[in-house]
Amino acid sequence: MIYIVGIGPGDKDYLTLKAVNIVENADLVVGSKRALGLFNLDEDKKIILTKNLVEELKNILNDKDTKNKNIAILSTGDPCFSGLLKTLLKIGIKKEDIEVISGISSIQIAASKLKISWEDYNIITLHGKEENREKLLNLIKNHEKVIFLPNNLRDDVKFLISNGINPETKIWVLENLTYPNEKISLKSLKEISEGEFSYLTVCVYEG
Amino acid sequence: MIYIVGIGPGDKDYLTLKAVNIVENADLVVGSKRALGLFNLDEDKKIILTKNLVEELKNILNDKDTKNKNIAILSTGDPCFSGLLKTLLKIGIKKEDIEVISGISSIQIAASKLKISWEDYNIITLHGKEENREKLLNLIKNHEKVIFLPNNLRDDVKFLISNGINPETKIWVLENLTYPNEKISLKSLKEISEGEFSYLTVCVYEG
Ligand SMILES: C[S@@+](CC[C@H](N)C(=O)[O-])C[C@H]1O[C@@H](n2cnc3c(N)ncnc32)[C@H](O)[C@@H]1O
Ligand SMILES: C[S@@+](CC[C@H](N)C(=O)[O-])C[C@H]1O[C@@H](n2cnc3c(N)ncnc32)[C@H](O)[C@@H]1O
Repeated sequence: MIYIVGIGPGDKDYLTLKAVNIVENADLVVGSKRALGLFNLDEDKKIILTKNLVEELKNILNDKDTKNKNIAILSTGDPCFSGLLKTLLKIGIKKEDIEVISGISSIQIAASKLKISWEDYNIITLHGKEENREKLLNLIKNHEKVIFLPNNLRDDVKFLISNGINPETKIWVLENLTYPNEKISLKSLKEISEGEFSYLTVCVYEG
Repeated sequence: MIYIVGIGPGDKDYLTLKAVNIVENADLVVGSKRALGLFNLDEDKKIILTKNLVEELKNILNDKDTKNKNIAILSTGDPCFSGLLKTLLKIGIKKEDIEVISGISSIQIAASKLKISWEDYNIITLHGKEENREKLLNLIKNHEKVIFLPNNLRDDVKFLISNGINPETKIWVLENLTYPNEKISLKSLKEISEGEFSYLTVCVYEG
């Protein structure tokens, strides 16, 4: 069985008991160095993913030695939000060979920090989804509430400005959520277009 | 400090380590009998909420004896999705007096069971939001993917049918997720309009 295990936003405390149990009982645990570091694991159970994630996953899952093992694949946040579930289905892993363990998404942590309810927001990811920029543009044009994961925040915001959104429009920029260097700030699009931001960023537009 | 603690969908294993820590270290823990049962707590720390949730919460939080205590309020799923955060803000609790601990939402468990990615879905709750029925109707008319929490599933579905949606349209009905009596079935609107369903139900329309 392949378990895709959501590990939450980064802080160990957001792991679920289920994630801990499944990972500690798996035969093999696959993930980034940082993700693997959240668990107490014997060295010989770990497989560290590096740059070429998709190729590496394919090799591991097609290796006949791993066919009858319980493999836990660690996924940031929730595997069902812009996460590893989609990647695995894309490379041909069958739904019946997978069990998914939900994890706390960065979207949820953003909501918890701002104390907003995400059923009131449109939720979109630009992460590898260029086409969603148009959608984001239209939502902001209509002053609709949005929580979004940027692709490249500076470029995404330049796109909004060059398509007519007022550069003084303010959005929340939530970086490195639950990490020691967490930073939450309300910034104008103009400021963002000139700034530097973490790869780990969620944005919130309050409409 | 008031902690609003997400306890996930029901199964203890979906608690986060953070939820367990905060609840076990709180001076008072407020929740339904079922929610309180997920934790190891001294009897004198527990306050059981019964029917009149809002009034009971108001009384507890306005009691001067509780003013300087750490109070954990247990919320099903994620407090930021159709959850207790909104209720508390509505009764006048200030954002600065609250800390919210995200929990796994029933929406996420539904996605994990069907192995779908919720960034591809519209997400809405009809729970106490009659006006969202129209929204649901329009999404289904346009064959757009939706995950929704019903208000009264049978009535909600009758509304869809009487507004022109084909009664043979199929949706997933996911009841009592993570409980021993969990049940997941694909049903036509017609069947649903004649059936009986749990209060704990998430629905998914795949477009
Ligand atoms: C490939 S997506 C994975 C999303 C993940 N499945 C989730 O549910 O949060 C990666 C993006 O998630 C967001 N993200 C993940 N962890 C984050 C954190 N700790 N703080 C801020 N954003 C985070 C960032 O936008 C990052 O670029
Ligand atoms: C007031 S809302 C609370 C939602 C919760 N905050 C969440 O994030 O799941 C209550 C509704 O959540 C859904 N729900 C909560 N737990 C569930 C479970 N274990 N299985 C199915 N649906 C559930 C049902 O639709 C229920 O009527």
